[in-house]
Amino acid sequence: MTQNKVTPAQGKLGILVVGCGAVSTTFITGVLMARKGLTKPVGSMTQYDKIRVGRGADARYLHYADIVPLAKLDDIVFGCWDVYPQNAYQAAMYAEVLKEKDIEPVRDELEKIVPMPAAFDKNYAKRLDGDNVKCSMVRSSSAGLQGKNGQCSMPTRWQMVEMLRKDIQQFKAANDCARVVVLWAASTEIYVPVCESVHYQLSDLEAAMKADDREHVAPSMCYAYAALSEGAPFIMGAPNTTVDIPAMWQLAEQTKMPIAGKDFKTGQTLVKSGFAPIIGTRCLGLNGWFSTNILGNRDGLVLDEPANFRTKEVSKLSTLETILKPDVQPDLYGHGNDEDTQYYHKVRINYYPPRNDNKEGWDNIDIFGWMGYPMQIKINFLCRDSILAAPLCLDLCLLSDLAARAGRFGIQRFLSFFLKSPMHDYTQGEEAVNHLYQQYTMLKNAIREMGGYEPDEEID
Amino acid sequence: MTQNKVTPAQGKLGILVVGCGAVSTTFITGVLMARKGLTKPVGSMTQYDKIRVGRGADARYLHYADIVPLAKLDDIVFGCWDVYPQNAYQAAMYAEVLKEKDIEPVRDELEKIVPMPAAFDKNYAKRLDGDNVKCSMVRSSSAGLQGKNGQCSMPTRWQMVEMLRKDIQQFKAANDCARVVVLWAASTEIYVPVCESVHYQLSDLEAAMKADDREHVAPSMCYAYAALSEGAPFIMGAPNTTVDIPAMWQLAEQTKMPIAGKDFKTGQTLVKSGFAPIIGTRCLGLNGWFSTNILGNRDGLVLDEPANFRTKEVSKLSTLETILKPDVQPDLYGHGNDEDTQYYHKVRINYYPPRNDNKEGWDNIDIFGWMGYPMQIKINFLCRDSILAAPLCLDLCLLSDLAARAGRFGIQRFLSFFLKSPMHDYTQGEEAVNHLYQQYTMLKNAIREMGGYEPDEEID
Amino acid sequence: MTQNKVTPAQGKLGILVVGCGAVSTTFITGVLMARKGLTKPVGSMTQYDKIRVGRGADARYLHYADIVPLAKLDDIVFGCWDVYPQNAYQAAMYAEVLKEKDIEPVRDELEKIVPMPAAFDKNYAKRLDGDNVKCSMVRSSSAGLQGKNGQCSMPTRWQMVEMLRKDIQQFKAANDCARVVVLWAASTEIYVPVCESVHYQLSDLEAAMKADDREHVAPSMCYAYAALSEGAPFIMGAPNTTVDIPAMWQLAEQTKMPIAGKDFKTGQTLVKSGFAPIIGTRCLGLNGWFSTNILGNRDGLVLDEPANFRTKEVSKLSTLETILKPDVQPDLYGHGNDEDTQYYHKVRINYYPPRNDNKEGWDNIDIFGWMGYPMQIKINFLCRDSILAAPLCLDLCLLSDLAARAGRFGIQRFLSFFLKSPMHDYTQGEEAVNHLYQQYTMLKNAIREMGGYEPDEEID
Amino acid sequence: MTQNKVTPAQGKLGILVVGCGAVSTTFITGVLMARKGLTKPVGSMTQYDKIRVGRGADARYLHYADIVPLAKLDDIVFGCWDVYPQNAYQAAMYAEVLKEKDIEPVRDELEKIVPMPAAFDKNYAKRLDGDNVKCSMVRSSSAGLQGKNGQCSMPTRWQMVEMLRKDIQQFKAANDCARVVVLWAASTEIYVPVCESVHYQLSDLEAAMKADDREHVAPSMCYAYAALSEGAPFIMGAPNTTVDIPAMWQLAEQTKMPIAGKDFKTGQTLVKSGFAPIIGTRCLGLNGWFSTNILGNRDGLVLDEPANFRTKEVSKLSTLETILKPDVQPDLYGHGNDEDTQYYHKVRINYYPPRNDNKEGWDNIDIFGWMGYPMQIKINFLCRDSILAAPLCLDLCLLSDLAARAGRFGIQRFLSFFLKSPMHDYTQGEEAVNHLYQQYTMLKNAIREMGGYEPDEEID
Repeated sequence: MTQNKVTPAQGKLGILVVGCGAVSTTFITGVLMARKGLTKPVGSMTQYDKIRVGRGADARYLHYADIVPLAKLDDIVFGCWDVYPQNAYQAAMYAEVLKEKDIEPVRDELEKIVPMPAAFDKNYAKRLDGDNVKCSMVRSSSAGLQGKNGQCSMPTRWQMVEMLRKDIQQFKAANDCARVVVLWAASTEIYVPVCESVHYQLSDLEAAMKADDREHVAPSMCYAYAALSEGAPFIMGAPNTTVDIPAMWQLAEQTKMPIAGKDFKTGQTLVKSGFAPIIGTRCLGLNGWFSTNILGNRDGLVLDEPANFRTKEVSKLSTLETILKPDVQPDLYGHGNDEDTQYYHKVRINYYPPRNDNKEGWDNIDIFGWMGYPMQIKINFLCRDSILAAPLCLDLCLLSDLAARAGRFGIQRFLSFFLKSPMHDYTQGEEAVNHLYQQYTMLKNAIREMGGYEPDEEID
Repeated sequence: MTQNKVTPAQGKLGILVVGCGAVSTTFITGVLMARKGLTKPVGSMTQYDKIRVGRGADARYLHYADIVPLAKLDDIVFGCWDVYPQNAYQAAMYAEVLKEKDIEPVRDELEKIVPMPAAFDKNYAKRLDGDNVKCSMVRSSSAGLQGKNGQCSMPTRWQMVEMLRKDIQQFKAANDCARVVVLWAASTEIYVPVCESVHYQLSDLEAAMKADDREHVAPSMCYAYAALSEGAPFIMGAPNTTVDIPAMWQLAEQTKMPIAGKDFKTGQTLVKSGFAPIIGTRCLGLNGWFSTNILGNRDGLVLDEPANFRTKEVSKLSTLETILKPDVQPDLYGHGNDEDTQYYHKVRINYYPPRNDNKEGWDNIDIFGWMGYPMQIKINFLCRDSILAAPLCLDLCLLSDLAARAGRFGIQRFLSFFLKSPMHDYTQGEEAVNHLYQQYTMLKNAIREMGGYEPDEEID
Repeated sequence: MTQNKVTPAQGKLGILVVGCGAVSTTFITGVLMARKGLTKPVGSMTQYDKIRVGRGADARYLHYADIVPLAKLDDIVFGCWDVYPQNAYQAAMYAEVLKEKDIEPVRDELEKIVPMPAAFDKNYAKRLDGDNVKCSMVRSSSAGLQGKNGQCSMPTRWQMVEMLRKDIQQFKAANDCARVVVLWAASTEIYVPVCESVHYQLSDLEAAMKADDREHVAPSMCYAYAALSEGAPFIMGAPNTTVDIPAMWQLAEQTKMPIAGKDFKTGQTLVKSGFAPIIGTRCLGLNGWFSTNILGNRDGLVLDEPANFRTKEVSKLSTLETILKPDVQPDLYGHGNDEDTQYYHKVRINYYPPRNDNKEGWDNIDIFGWMGYPMQIKINFLCRDSILAAPLCLDLCLLSDLAARAGRFGIQRFLSFFLKSPMHDYTQGEEAVNHLYQQYTMLKNAIREMGGYEPDEEID
Repeated sequence: MTQNKVTPAQGKLGILVVGCGAVSTTFITGVLMARKGLTKPVGSMTQYDKIRVGRGADARYLHYADIVPLAKLDDIVFGCWDVYPQNAYQAAMYAEVLKEKDIEPVRDELEKIVPMPAAFDKNYAKRLDGDNVKCSMVRSSSAGLQGKNGQCSMPTRWQMVEMLRKDIQQFKAANDCARVVVLWAASTEIYVPVCESVHYQLSDLEAAMKADDREHVAPSMCYAYAALSEGAPFIMGAPNTTVDIPAMWQLAEQTKMPIAGKDFKTGQTLVKSGFAPIIGTRCLGLNGWFSTNILGNRDGLVLDEPANFRTKEVSKLSTLETILKPDVQPDLYGHGNDEDTQYYHKVRINYYPPRNDNKEGWDNIDIFGWMGYPMQIKINFLCRDSILAAPLCLDLCLLSDLAARAGRFGIQRFLSFFLKSPMHDYTQGEEAVNHLYQQYTMLKNAIREMGGYEPDEEID
């Protein structure tokens, strides 16, 4: 056994959530209820999973908290930002994810969680119209600050960073937090392609922020920059490319902070990353995979805008290709598309309001077996976005905080398990790991290693 | 690296198949076509899978045949028994699994594969009415042997054994085989509960055979006994309990032969053993799993008889319980059934002739997540029984032959991957392994070990 | 236009429901809520449907109530019998069909609906164990009536009839009802095959009741007999054969009362009776239809007993055969089963507790088209038993009451629309009508006729 | 009974099909096979359906041909145009819809059906690249006509008309046809919105053709114009707006010819137009209907181009709205979309090559019942485009020919039954009829009327 060098989880852990919508309030409510013993945090790896440490006769199966020093649910303090001013109780009721009886017992605590004004640029999410947003100070006016009397105007990106850093500092002080984690659980922004001249060097990114380059700097980048600068890990739960850029990696390295992203692996991609391995493990062939999704909550509304959808689509398409590889098994996966080099893979996301938070996936999978004979599998997943996302929020926060205390900074590949489009250093030709069980192996190895045990599994 | 002590695969390998129906002919035709380069043996692990040997920087990914000495497709000779006299070409055409164009190129070879008379007892499969069956010699008659002139009567179980042994000897000699494997790819027999006074001691079993105890000795047991006695591994592809009895394990030990069973893992159970791990790995809860199946080939016809169905049902029900365990995760899997101790699991198999070989599974899975909120998954698998079974036949034969040459005898747990209800020594409290990836790990470790590499994966 | 001879719907209409479970309480609660304007009685033909009267230029589209004199929701008074003593509020909460907020506003009214003791014979529904049941008076005892001190014993069938008649009389008087309807919305009893010597002549049936012939006289027959004797129409909502016997028809004729049954057409059969006409109308062929059902409420529990299931199965199987007829279109519907004379039709019902009232049907339909090429349709209906049954309860009660006032007695074929296995005089070779649109035509014609309009549609 | 004034069906009936692809060759092959008694024309109303004539006791059920004089299969002669030069045998083999054994017996006849060069404009179907197209004569060149030596250029629209008329004349003469019908069974063109200044007056349309207005005159309009001018009914099987314009109606009136369109009602819309009535008839509510489609044949390829998809989408969306009407039942159908006035209806079509001709629909239907409680229905239709379209081709040709002989010209509303987006005179505020059973009533009434019987059903 190696030396365990992780700093203990002492004091309060502040969790600052960007967005106070369905996912955030389901996450927060669940944690508050669970620590009162009124509900179970089902789906959370940190609360339920047991992993093996030791091999052969020495093998033992332990909960994560028995291997590494995790923050306790009792030590968490919540805060949030949102473009709508409703407190977490109001937002939870509005979201209609949880039944009233599962919210009321913690109503008081939820009501105290009031969103700070968001750093917002409507161009990045046209369908949202909240006005609980940060304003730049209009000095020429007598009236003054914070946009009173209609004199509010959008701050520059750099001003956003500064305001957010102040928010974090104040929250930390006011709540006596030893540590803070910032979690993005807000909407998908429009697609921002990685631009080498802005996104590769930290200095370039800072210059763009200062020049208020609104095309290349998404508001989410201001949150990430502020978090990392304040010594808080940052987690991107939407498909935004926020921390998928080398400039942000540099910042994480400087501040020794972990970053994780992107896009919570909730419904269809969870199934895909778990089902594709069945096909691959049994050496069955694949002709095509068609995925369609209907979803109706605010996430769906935002995605109904083509520029926002583009961000999501890019995130979802990569999953399969890294699990069933044409170059490794050309007889099995080198079929079906236009150039006859690969199976056909298509993903569709559709805004469909009747469902609200209860999104639904329908996958049609065209496989083939012995002598090439075709077969079909259809998977219909009637799931709940926020119910699947909430335990991921908890795990990502607790494990990012753990990583920070373990001195692990930058991209946290071991968190790929929780993410639809896991971070990887593409500038070095690194590939994302989407295979559910390979991701799980990475997660287990990291826990073992931080716990002072041998990270003894191979990822294959 | 340990010393590789596996005997090389020299000479012909005889594969004697019990049953010349849809599965057998699809298997045989595919092998004959593949070795002419006219088709691909998709789904076969021995032909396609690559596994890692060595760890870390030393890791290499090799086909099985590059790790262990496997028999080549070119070295296989086929024979079979069946209650119907049609040759393998006629049987393949009748089965309507493969298109004519996928059979014709090997018609000549198929026509030469003519079933030997089967050791058959109609009580064990009432819906079958073939008359290509073994007869006892009626000595009092002048006419003579083999049931001519209606004087045929069913041989005793012990006579069956002796006749089958002679069949194997003759086949081996006639075809100049260095080794033989016997594979049961015939119907499900009626359910034979394990009876300690008959099935636990080899001597008791032999006595029962000699006493012609038709209640406790299924015809399939005669095939297994004959195979093992003749130095041939025996594989049970149906859910019959043939080799699931300690008496047979003793025989395998005496003759140093491997045995494997039971029930090819083809459609719904394949999906179940692969999908349940997704739920378990993500720590989601399970309220219930309802599986229904429609199938219309001769397998379905036989299963339409309640006594035969019982055999199948017992085989299918165990899968889930060993993957999602209430005792390990009571919050997640300790719900839902009558005694409130476990999720509700139900399996239905329905004979439905319109489908012929194209069976279909429909699974409804009631899971729950964060705070106990329910979600549903439906999986509809439009599969082909024989197409999924054929590569399993090939792999089980080649790997059993390998095991014999490696000096591995008795229950072959590493073959669990291919089987719906894998063998295990229940008299020692051993549990079956149904988790697809744990099975795969066992398979990989065994290949590594027989290849002289370290079996370096833990099964968890 | 003919003369409208329907007696007006004056005074209170008592609706006495046998069973105070999920269906009954959903029905009652909905009516109470709707007449307060707090909900909508969706699915009710009497409340929503409009039908044409007059032809061509004279055509007008009217609600039923504008054509015939229907009882108003405001005039309904509810009562019930049940083996469990809980009042309708408690029963509605227990059933968990409706949300609390949809029950509370009428809590007071529901609490006043307290079940009268049921006429019950446990042999007819083994899985039920309530003890709010009628007892015969044990005269030899000093303690007295109604089974106090454990001296209760099951009344004879004829005593049941007499007790139930008294219940009806008292309810009618206590609630000042002008008319009463009795509706069976309780469990499926075990299958009682029609027995000519008991069930064909009213005198035979009465003799059997008096002889306490428990094998041939189901408790439900006592309810029907009592209702008809008291001048109340009787409706059988379960698949029991209660009123499917000529003896009961004689009684209905004597008392000039309508009878209707059997089995509410709620989920899968509704779809089947509506979907099969699509296939038939387009002259597509049918090879097979496989229907499976999972349901978990008390209905499912009772049906888990084979003898009760048998009753249900007989009810469900007939649907298809009267819509897609092999004799009329032998090329299209004369295929597929054992004797090659018809498509293969199979229905499975499975008790699956995780679902409670939310039953689910999965239908697989194997059709064929041009040149015999096969195609498949799968229908997955995630429905709610009680939500679909409640409007049928309302319509059947209101329309039976209408029929009584219109002088229509005996079998009411125009109510086939609402029923899974509609009544018909099989002793005259009459066939059931299961085709949804033919049933609808019968319904419309009857309304027109009772409204004094021409019943101008042909049923084809 | 009125006087039957339909001209008998004497002599040969030429059927000229635009497009020689999957649908056309399946249609033609089936007819050729059926008239040899080698297959059954399943799905064809003219060959299978029986309808009632007479009412009540006089009712009789007759095949169409026993009511009206229909052309016999034996009297049909086929011809076609296509951009690819392959004959009908080659095209049928390429399409892979029918098995070889269902084509070979009529190979000779099929090989004789060689496509005439198509009137084609690549702008209208970018994904098609065939070169068997009509060329204008380039007079300035010495080489000459028909585009030899690369001097081919696209004819003007008016030249197309003239060339097509000549084709029809020659075909008719060469095959000794008494009558000809022209059927469009080719690709979907790009969307051409109706433009009042071009499409409302026949003179305007002719002027545009002569001016070679390629934006407003689709090639399909040239086929329709040519057909009608030559005294042939024209049928539009794709969603092109070709005959959905008043100018074409004028021409049909002048030439006394029937026109029918548009878009064969094959898969998902067939189900929709049949399933929506189930919901409506039972007065259930609708919150939303989401339809997705995957298809992979040339039809799908063409539709993968957004401009062509637009044409299809417009055609498919109208179906539901005319069956479940918010204005008639606001409580049931006035919910769910943005303006809270109607349920949410969405249709998606996806090009998915692995399926070839076997398209597949998945419909999710969100209904609600009693007290507004939601339920879901999913319909998965694994269908075959050409197998469903072929009998429609036959019926539309035979019935259009019948209509012409019955003196019915212009829009044939009684053919709505066969069409996804049935023609109607929108300039008069007429509404399309999409309800399957209303369409069927119109069909039956028309047959009755042309047969001299009373068209005695109301359409409601």
